[in-house]
Amino acid sequence: MSGWLRVVGLGPAEADWRTREVERALAEAQHVVGYHTYLARVPERSGLTRHGSDNGDELARARRGLELAQRGARVVVVSGGDAGVFGMAAAVFEALELGPPSWRNIEITVLPAVTAMLAAAARLGAPLGNDFCAINLSDNLKPWAVVEKRLALAAQADFVIALYNPASQARQEQLGQALEILRRHRTLDAVVMFARAVGRPQEQLRVTTLGTADPAWADMQTLILVGNHTTRCVAREAARPWVYTPRRLAPAP
Amino acid sequence: MSGWLRVVGLGPAEADWRTREVERALAEAQHVVGYHTYLARVPERSGLTRHGSDNGDELARARRGLELAQRGARVVVVSGGDAGVFGMAAAVFEALELGPPSWRNIEITVLPAVTAMLAAAARLGAPLGNDFCAINLSDNLKPWAVVEKRLALAAQADFVIALYNPASQARQEQLGQALEILRRHRTLDAVVMFARAVGRPQEQLRVTTLGTADPAWADMQTLILVGNHTTRCVAREAARPWVYTPRRLAPAP
Repeated sequence: MSGWLRVVGLGPAEADWRTREVERALAEAQHVVGYHTYLARVPERSGLTRHGSDNGDELARARRGLELAQRGARVVVVSGGDAGVFGMAAAVFEALELGPPSWRNIEITVLPAVTAMLAAAARLGAPLGNDFCAINLSDNLKPWAVVEKRLALAAQADFVIALYNPASQARQEQLGQALEILRRHRTLDAVVMFARAVGRPQEQLRVTTLGTADPAWADMQTLILVGNHTTRCVAREAARPWVYTPRRLAPAP
Repeated sequence: MSGWLRVVGLGPAEADWRTREVERALAEAQHVVGYHTYLARVPERSGLTRHGSDNGDELARARRGLELAQRGARVVVVSGGDAGVFGMAAAVFEALELGPPSWRNIEITVLPAVTAMLAAAARLGAPLGNDFCAINLSDNLKPWAVVEKRLALAAQADFVIALYNPASQARQEQLGQALEILRRHRTLDAVVMFARAVGRPQEQLRVTTLGTADPAWADMQTLILVGNHTTRCVAREAARPWVYTPRRLAPAP
């Protein structure tokens, strides 16, 4: 009997944003492994054993999934959003590299999904319409100096910038520092967007500027987008403006 | 009767990568507007009128969709991948801004989807496991000097770099120039991945290094990923290596 491991992104909250491939993997699995919060989004059913663990325990979760698959089980490891973007996929391959050589024969598939910045951008209009970058603001796994350097270079490159994990209960100061760095390289009227709990009933979207953006508006469920120097708002009556970044950077020929 | 416009990403080729939300929009639409190549991926059915046009005609397509929705029709504008990433969404909001004020009352929804770099990354392992950027290498809509500047800054930031549209029949020289810029800032053993026609029968994946990457391997259907300085390969017997970028940048405490 041959097992397999599928590393699966559940997408951002809204079940209608899941791909058919992910739904099939969840239907075929015997085991599902993941952080409690994401596991709660996988419906219970007979024949499916659930292995929940705390956040921050990624390598242990990855090893658990690999061990089960190695013993012949059909295993799904779940992430929120896309598993390849600050999710479980990198942890699985790290565990694979550090683990017994026999693990390298396990049938592993990573199933792509909608990542948070794509869902947030869709709600807001088309802010990612030109070159962009994604920066994880957490310094749990990298020195803060690296984050600062990347922010400064990204601003100079005039990328639209997506900030993942801008704040948590333990990290309240960093978003303010990040915005200060961006203010050195971008004008204060640059468009800044706070997208909170996208796809959930408590979804909240806020369109503001770099000059007035307040770090207190962000929490663990927030993704922030910072426009480039051409990002624009299209005003509407009695509705939030649409935000888009034009495809064209130079004047038309 | 009130119409609507949904701007829809069909994802990268593989129908199983579509979201349920996108499938529903395609089922409910009366009109579908898009570039011929993407339109061919929408099944014919009675009650659905198809409006195909050539590539490069984005604003005209966007206006067509908005006009139909304004007259009360249910309209889907399709893109490949995610419509917000170098796709039709930005063109729709540009047309909206330039068009009659009444268009701003049209009910518009952008439906997020799996973009090419997420699908390519999933096939290769987890190369986007740390901060990354996406650069459209085409200079049809921006000066080549901007592309060069962004490449140099992205390399200095040690982003994993996704290169969209690395080559076309009309643009054969630029990928070589781009790789030269990256070689000035990255070591020659940096991992470079060519992902061609991901999700199609003719899918082709190649894992190489910055020193040996050959621009001739890329065409219009190729997406290129360039690892950061920590991106690693996990060797397997009789199989392509897995590629991943570790989540951790600093040595463990």
